[in-house]
Amino acid sequence: MGRDLTALFDPGSVAVVGASDDPAKYGHAVASQALRAPGRRPVHLVNRRGGTVLGRTAATSLAAIGEPVELVVISVPGAGFEAAVDDALACGARAIVGITAGFAEAGPEGLARQQAVAERVRAAGAVLVGPNCLGIADNTTELYLASDRFAPGGVALLSQSGNLALELQLRAAPHGLGFSRFVSLGNQADVTLVDLVEDCARHEATSAIAVYAEDFGDGRAFARAAAAAGKPVVLLTAGRGAASARSAQSHTGALTTSADVVAAACRDAGVELVHTPREMTVVLAALAAGPGTRANGRRTAVFTDGGGHGAIAADAAEDAGLDVPELGARAQERLRTVLWEQSAVGNPVDLAGMGEQNPLSYAGTVAELLAADEVDAVLMTGYFGGYAASDGGLGGGSTGGADGGPDGGSVLAQGEQRAARAIVRHLAAAPKPLVVQSMYPQSPSCRVLARAGVPVFAATEDAARALAAMTARGAAGAPGLPDLPAPAAPLRDTGYHGVRALLDSAGVPFPPAREITDEAGLLAAAEEFKGPYVLKALHVLHKSDAGGVALRLADREALLAAHRDMHARLGAPSYSVEAMADLTDGIELIVGVNRDPRFGPVALVGLGGVLTETLRDVAFALAPVPARRAGELLRGLRTAALLKGVRGRPAVDVAAAAAVIERVTTVAAAHPEIAELEVNPLLVRPDGALALDARAVLL
Amino acid sequence: MGRDLTALFDPGSVAVVGASDDPAKYGHAVASQALRAPGRRPVHLVNRRGGTVLGRTAATSLAAIGEPVELVVISVPGAGFEAAVDDALACGARAIVGITAGFAEAGPEGLARQQAVAERVRAAGAVLVGPNCLGIADNTTELYLASDRFAPGGVALLSQSGNLALELQLRAAPHGLGFSRFVSLGNQADVTLVDLVEDCARHEATSAIAVYAEDFGDGRAFARAAAAAGKPVVLLTAGRGAASARSAQSHTGALTTSADVVAAACRDAGVELVHTPREMTVVLAALAAGPGTRANGRRTAVFTDGGGHGAIAADAAEDAGLDVPELGARAQERLRTVLWEQSAVGNPVDLAGMGEQNPLSYAGTVAELLAADEVDAVLMTGYFGGYAASDGGLGGGSTGGADGGPDGGSVLAQGEQRAARAIVRHLAAAPKPLVVQSMYPQSPSCRVLARAGVPVFAATEDAARALAAMTARGAAGAPGLPDLPAPAAPLRDTGYHGVRALLDSAGVPFPPAREITDEAGLLAAAEEFKGPYVLKALHVLHKSDAGGVALRLADREALLAAHRDMHARLGAPSYSVEAMADLTDGIELIVGVNRDPRFGPVALVGLGGVLTETLRDVAFALAPVPARRAGELLRGLRTAALLKGVRGRPAVDVAAAAAVIERVTTVAAAHPEIAELEVNPLLVRPDGALALDARAVLL
Repeated sequence: MGRDLTALFDPGSVAVVGASDDPAKYGHAVASQALRAPGRRPVHLVNRRGGTVLGRTAATSLAAIGEPVELVVISVPGAGFEAAVDDALACGARAIVGITAGFAEAGPEGLARQQAVAERVRAAGAVLVGPNCLGIADNTTELYLASDRFAPGGVALLSQSGNLALELQLRAAPHGLGFSRFVSLGNQADVTLVDLVEDCARHEATSAIAVYAEDFGDGRAFARAAAAAGKPVVLLTAGRGAASARSAQSHTGALTTSADVVAAACRDAGVELVHTPREMTVVLAALAAGPGTRANGRRTAVFTDGGGHGAIAADAAEDAGLDVPELGARAQERLRTVLWEQSAVGNPVDLAGMGEQNPLSYAGTVAELLAADEVDAVLMTGYFGGYAASDGGLGGGSTGGADGGPDGGSVLAQGEQRAARAIVRHLAAAPKPLVVQSMYPQSPSCRVLARAGVPVFAATEDAARALAAMTARGAAGAPGLPDLPAPAAPLRDTGYHGVRALLDSAGVPFPPAREITDEAGLLAAAEEFKGPYVLKALHVLHKSDAGGVALRLADREALLAAHRDMHARLGAPSYSVEAMADLTDGIELIVGVNRDPRFGPVALVGLGGVLTETLRDVAFALAPVPARRAGELLRGLRTAALLKGVRGRPAVDVAAAAAVIERVTTVAAAHPEIAELEVNPLLVRPDGALALDARAVLL
Repeated sequence: MGRDLTALFDPGSVAVVGASDDPAKYGHAVASQALRAPGRRPVHLVNRRGGTVLGRTAATSLAAIGEPVELVVISVPGAGFEAAVDDALACGARAIVGITAGFAEAGPEGLARQQAVAERVRAAGAVLVGPNCLGIADNTTELYLASDRFAPGGVALLSQSGNLALELQLRAAPHGLGFSRFVSLGNQADVTLVDLVEDCARHEATSAIAVYAEDFGDGRAFARAAAAAGKPVVLLTAGRGAASARSAQSHTGALTTSADVVAAACRDAGVELVHTPREMTVVLAALAAGPGTRANGRRTAVFTDGGGHGAIAADAAEDAGLDVPELGARAQERLRTVLWEQSAVGNPVDLAGMGEQNPLSYAGTVAELLAADEVDAVLMTGYFGGYAASDGGLGGGSTGGADGGPDGGSVLAQGEQRAARAIVRHLAAAPKPLVVQSMYPQSPSCRVLARAGVPVFAATEDAARALAAMTARGAAGAPGLPDLPAPAAPLRDTGYHGVRALLDSAGVPFPPAREITDEAGLLAAAEEFKGPYVLKALHVLHKSDAGGVALRLADREALLAAHRDMHARLGAPSYSVEAMADLTDGIELIVGVNRDPRFGPVALVGLGGVLTETLRDVAFALAPVPARRAGELLRGLRTAALLKGVRGRPAVDVAAAAAVIERVTTVAAAHPEIAELEVNPLLVRPDGALALDARAVLL
């Protein structure tokens, strides 16, 4: 399953073409790094002028090396790239890393050159990373072919930006994070993000996959690979605002996908979507706590010694999507047995000075909170660590002192460290996570917790975000991604009745309707089914706005009059006569499917009518959307309360609407020739759902 | 103006009652700190057992000191507090700091004791901070009466939480922030948050006021004092979620105010509202850049060298409420003159490697962006600082390297520092702010910027938040706070027609209506004005839900029938016969005023009907709300597009609705006896606004 990238990550030999003594050249940086593990495999430096590079004799060409090379890094000026690739393939290269820039990112001509060279690489059975990349590294095979050093650890970092990768590398160490691999994605001419996610999923030393991407390539395949990875995938991407979308497009020349679609794909694939390098590091630190410490739900107990931190952290937890419910009577009673009278035990729990008297009360509180059925996870916040803070401060420097002065430290400090060890023991016995925010994250007590795998943060919002990441993949897991149905016979007739017929054959219910071109047809239709009627002018753009829809036509006379009026005004070639649906207690929904260039068919569901336009109260999901999932999406809308009935109105039949959504999105997914398919409005009433209009646009 | 707190912040002499050698006692910590500036003023230590404390002879009582003491800190067990206060007043104390706990926070009995002692202090013409506080400090007068040291600087910190104050103190130094004063608010029995904000506003050495509060006391007075302070006020508070509201209530025994009201008051008073200690520090760092560097608008230019950071920062800026508009043709042309071909100049601006070739291009870019009319502020993000990073890393440790290796550093490093100095010169000539996110915030180049007052952050979201804070008080300033009108004669008749009469006399338009109790009255009313009619049963709770409202009664027969039916079902003692308003093209709004225990009359405006309930699309403001401001609130609703007309409907008369809102909120503000006053629905049509129903509830 997936491409074999062994030659890329664990080659038997390496050559750096464009190796240089000039520190302003990238070939200098890569060659310097490549030589860090000289004993692991032969490393050849190639410089067309020969001589020495970094104190070693450089070959004037790959051929001049005189033996096959398994992996070749090419860092030469743009004009020489193709020749270097050909040389590499001629020397038996199985993997090429293309540093050289000036291809797809430079315009159509560059794209064509890139496609041609990638084709030659594939034809030779080799793989190519880049071009326009910054190299790769694999700490597990001592392969260092990028300008930066990455401290060893479990994170595989796949990045489309060198500087963001550098920032992530700088941020990792304070959280105890390191890297198994680094790949600069470049233009993904051959080896894609998807190939790399699949390979890193198989890579035992990789415990989490961190991605920065602007262009997802086959976005649906990425989401699928991430969902199947069996380890956390964290995605940093931009594009939520107009400016960043402009930037990504100009930076990579890539087609961009709306942030809504990326977010929906991540949500359903179980990918943690983050927005900044800092957030990515926080989430990676949380997920590094291991799969044994995932919360089964969002119910969080917050506790502190000193109310302010508890209140601030409770808000931060709710902001991060967690719940902070009041504890039940039994849990409160049990907390009372380990705390004193002035402690608050409702949630947030406030030791109210008890921690200062007896640091072990922190441990007792953790034990009781972990034991409470109504608690899925615990967030400890505030001063803990301060009693034993040797260096104090957020990053070191100042001295603590709320324990009553320097002399008072030792007894409390010892008690606090005993408490930390007791907390670790309690956690070992409970399958629930603890996350800590401390004013003294580097204190000995907090280090005891961190060494035992408890994520410790200086900032409240980081602790809350971390806990949310540990909770997201709870018992239920991610919703999962749908399979695309086999393509059906292409839709030819994109007229209204053609689209209706397509949907009707898939089981989408419509009111009776007939397409007519004259009054005789109109009258025949009026005989066929009962009024009131609806008359729609067909083949008219924005027919509602143009006055091409007449509702509530009581009888054939009203129908005739409407037809004459409409025909005089619009002169449409044909019309649809329909039985008007009973709108009583109904709500109008919209379901649409757009074909995204990266993620394929993407469904949008939401409230129809005026609300759709003003509130954008819609949800996205990769199509097709199973009925169960469609129901969840509808019930997750901001205006979902309308579906349950407000002001005495009965609830509408969400299940019926969901079934229609499944059918519409399945049809769209089976028709790759359809760019847009929309049912709007989809009327949902207490006793069922009915499609009242539909349209399709071909690619 | 305001209370004289000179004796509190710059007393001629100090005594610490409860000074102790026992490090577990708070009196030990305070006494230790008090002795840090022994030459400034006499500092007396009092311990009823006498002997020595901290190596000094302790007096056995305040009286035993033998001379008057201007400020007395009391840190004795609860039972002895009142006696100590009396002793202090007897010794001529003008200010008392009450550390002792067990008062209002402990229950009604404690509250009564607290009120009594505060009364005695006030009667003696003295002031009291606390009780249940952790002390005060004033670095400008060498007054150290709290357990923690606060590095000197311009921030006055007023906090209801000792641990949060400690965290803020720990977080300040890395941002170059220090403190002018610290006051632990305690129970605010006498000296309140408002008194302290007013005094810190007058305090020259204070450049910004930072507040953590759970109980605002007189919230309206706090907002007013903050608005009048003439310097930034930053408020950290909790209470957005149910859990933190529970916590604040149990922690301080305080009445809590909804977070919506606090946010509205802060918005209108120009108070920066923050949610975590980290955010507070970021905002304080931004505002420390001084009043000369405020942005006049939200249009932000983002630039970087290496596209990823630019895209991420552009999203972060938009998330923080800033705009990142595409630059105009002229600005793009000018950027082209300082950049190279592959640079992106649209916004985000991407040097695309030019910075690595010539660091001065960073400075040239800053100059051009500052010069562009369409740019209010500049956000520089990414690698800048890396070339000259001596210690590298986010907090120190690793070495940079994207410049091509260690040997390449020096030339680029010098260029980068020259660029930093050039940026400082460009900024001096431009009245626009620059904020920097750098992977190397401690690098020499970034230190050059920071020393010149440029806020530099490691995290993208911090830089964006800082810039938003520098922008919020732009040219327009905060909307300001309304004055309360003089109280009017109290409302007696809270029946529907009594409330109508009250509002009618204030100029609120209603359709014609008459209260009737029998059919004769009904028929008389039907003669008085034309149909269609509305009939409402009065003195019936939730009359709509109970079937006590009949609309669209075409004539007197329909009116009679509705009355008979309603009377049979509900037996209401009286009814209102009204002319039915023309609802064509109308939108239903709601305007209500609730009396908040802390902020007084608070107005709520929003869309009425089903939308109010399901979307909570409402805005809050302290009442009364001037019409201009009411219009802004309406136009700021999420569903504001409905007011402009959608789907071919005409726009409604927002100005007329705003005028009604002014009148309703002014009436409510003039009636302190009214707990709730509501007009719902307030019908607004293209040609005016009309109140269709109203109700009031007395306190």
